[in-house]
Amino acid sequence: MSEYSKVTVAALAITPGPGGTITFLHQQRGPYAGHWLLPGGKVDPGESVPAAACREAGEEAGVDLKPDDMTLTGVYEMLGQWSGGSYHLIMFCFLAAGEHTVPAGWQGDQVGEVVQVPADSLTPHPTVMRILNDAGVTVYDQADIEAGLERDGITMLRLAAGLPA
Amino acid sequence: MSEYSKVTVAALAITPGPGGTITFLHQQRGPYAGHWLLPGGKVDPGESVPAAACREAGEEAGVDLKPDDMTLTGVYEMLGQWSGGSYHLIMFCFLAAGEHTVPAGWQGDQVGEVVQVPADSLTPHPTVMRILNDAGVTVYDQADIEAGLERDGITMLRLAAGLPA
Repeated sequence: MSEYSKVTVAALAITPGPGGTITFLHQQRGPYAGHWLLPGGKVDPGESVPAAACREAGEEAGVDLKPDDMTLTGVYEMLGQWSGGSYHLIMFCFLAAGEHTVPAGWQGDQVGEVVQVPADSLTPHPTVMRILNDAGVTVYDQADIEAGLERDGITMLRLAAGLPA
Repeated sequence: MSEYSKVTVAALAITPGPGGTITFLHQQRGPYAGHWLLPGGKVDPGESVPAAACREAGEEAGVDLKPDDMTLTGVYEMLGQWSGGSYHLIMFCFLAAGEHTVPAGWQGDQVGEVVQVPADSLTPHPTVMRILNDAGVTVYDQADIEAGLERDGITMLRLAAGLPA
């Protein structure tokens, strides 16, 4: 396991858009470049995890989320390799309450296109399909998820659910 | 928040001992030195979180735990300061199935005394009191927990529970 150099803590926001849509962005950097992802990124030292999810959604998708309106839907451990080396990610996933509209003409920070579309109108990264399914937001085919994780050599373990209501 | 330099991922094992006891160790290093803690420590890069809890319990308390026998009881975010600087910790807490006996004459890796005693026979660190209460293992007084966290200047947020059965 020596090829892994660090454990990175990240957070993402499942962000409902108008009319039953979900907010996706086309990733241009990192291990999942070229895929449709959810807004998210690294937790900064000293920054609370729910606050990080909100900050990243603001930077990447221009939406204004509040930590108190975020419900944790799962915590995942993802391990894999890419051209930049190996990565070991702990990902906290939150569902934002309400509907949020990406501003017209929005260009996010170091991301490609940002869209708000029905989840079944595109094929996101397999980790995202699993995260959305576990959150009860989508019903992507389980076999597609497993095939995608296998294809990309990703080990994905669900560590935790949200807090009991 | 610039005094925080990193986010550290750690895991601990609530380890039942013989006769309804819990395994505690007297910490000698780090921000919680001088307190009774549960076996645990940093997750190594490339090492799964449940495996880290088992490895740490083995190194510190000499018990042989298996990742498949560990049930997540909570995930916490802890922020605070000590003489070594500021710390931002993401702590995954597991309850080990079964009973486990610390070997006679055991001396753990870089820890002080290791004991297996009823939880009400000592006063552990306030973060440990909260973790054990949330796991349903103890009923420490909530006011004592809050007073302890306040005294030590610790911000402790419960981020997640375990997976639904």
